[in-house]
Amino acid sequence: MTNKLYIIKIGGALIDNEALLNQFLEQFAEIREKKILVHGGGKLATTLADKLGIEQKMINGRRVTDKETLDIVTMVYAGGINKNIVEKLQQKKCNAVGFSGADGNLIKAKKREHPEIDFGYVGDINKKSVNKKLVSKLMKLDLVPVFSAITHDKKGNLFNTNADTIASVLAQALSEKYKVELLYCFDKEGVLEDVENPESLIRNVSEEKFITLKEQGKLHKGILPKLENALGAVKNKVNKVFLIKETELKNHIEKHHAGTEICL
Amino acid sequence: MTNKLYIIKIGGALIDNEALLNQFLEQFAEIREKKILVHGGGKLATTLADKLGIEQKMINGRRVTDKETLDIVTMVYAGGINKNIVEKLQQKKCNAVGFSGADGNLIKAKKREHPEIDFGYVGDINKKSVNKKLVSKLMKLDLVPVFSAITHDKKGNLFNTNADTIASVLAQALSEKYKVELLYCFDKEGVLEDVENPESLIRNVSEEKFITLKEQGKLHKGILPKLENALGAVKNKVNKVFLIKETELKNHIEKHHAGTEICL
Repeated sequence: MTNKLYIIKIGGALIDNEALLNQFLEQFAEIREKKILVHGGGKLATTLADKLGIEQKMINGRRVTDKETLDIVTMVYAGGINKNIVEKLQQKKCNAVGFSGADGNLIKAKKREHPEIDFGYVGDINKKSVNKKLVSKLMKLDLVPVFSAITHDKKGNLFNTNADTIASVLAQALSEKYKVELLYCFDKEGVLEDVENPESLIRNVSEEKFITLKEQGKLHKGILPKLENALGAVKNKVNKVFLIKETELKNHIEKHHAGTEICL
Repeated sequence: MTNKLYIIKIGGALIDNEALLNQFLEQFAEIREKKILVHGGGKLATTLADKLGIEQKMINGRRVTDKETLDIVTMVYAGGINKNIVEKLQQKKCNAVGFSGADGNLIKAKKREHPEIDFGYVGDINKKSVNKKLVSKLMKLDLVPVFSAITHDKKGNLFNTNADTIASVLAQALSEKYKVELLYCFDKEGVLEDVENPESLIRNVSEEKFITLKEQGKLHKGILPKLENALGAVKNKVNKVFLIKETELKNHIEKHHAGTEICL
């Protein structure tokens, strides 16, 4: 339990900003401890779908992944974005290797079940979904895994899975073997009392505080899944969980903790 | 030198035919020895480029890979096709894991140099380009590597590289450690005296015979790069090299050699 492992999730806004992404990956490459990167999608998939005239399917206001959309996100996430991040890290002397959940059966999902809505190719996962033995063996080869948010069911189906959840579930599964610090990196300083005011950073969010903030309507849309997944991680024995600003990575790791710590 | 390793290359026509691809992957999954799959592209990339209005660039009749085209082939080859093949193999209980040359620095290329033409993002490789230590270590974890035809230069660039060449170069590099059999699978019985007549199979092609056939104009376009790469492999100590029909894989391996053997 002395092996430190950082599991770091980045989102779409960072991926869409090449200069910022480069700066972030520079900081990521410099981390000396074991590390895993998980990335979301960004606007590329939506732009491509628009250009190809593929409409986003909604049922009862919920987004649905049909086969055409799955094909696009597989191309964009596991191909375009993943390989470009891997190459940028290789350039920075970080021995990155890109994976989807299908590769080596690393993350096995179940098609989302819902009494009313068929979400299509959306895969749900939990900590048992992770092939943690293989992830460990790959890291022992000094490889740095870079996960796209594509999973599979080993029955011939690929799935679209929330990248925040992938990061949380990887952290949970690997906490049996590593002292995991899970970092959700995004464009805010952390959880803010007032989303317009970076000075209003909340340094600690417990489950109780989370419920209060949610009831007060203080959590903007994008932060909700992050906080839910972050809380899931601390409940499942992940050592440390933070939400930090993506430009603060190096600072957070080398000097002082930045952002909001999520705790029980 | 007693470890047998099959390196098997499949092309676009197979990838574009789902039923045939499934049948082939069934046979591939059943191979008990160590194995690597290398796949080409198929029509998907061209179709996608057409839909997006990206024109194929030609200079002096030679195809050029500009940045837009590179982005498309990276998505389609390393994302869409690669992950779908990996998932189909996972379904057939073959522990496949998909790689581009950038992943783990597995295949490092140099931008193609030419006195007159800038080919754009086209990468040239030789047997020294292969990170054979890592490929071996990955196979020791009982993983089955599936390579797409994307390489990199570790300087921030991804490249489009001929899939026939990737298969040949992997075979050459790994022949120091394994007894490699390199199989080019395609839609013909092998090298034919008369391309319209499957009965006209030539069982052996040496370099001499290759030159004669070429001079006689008997080699159709698609077979030329395969034969050149196949000859490159035998010259560089690859144990066995064949061109076979893709439906003959199981037959070739279990019962008798099919197709055309390439020899010195």
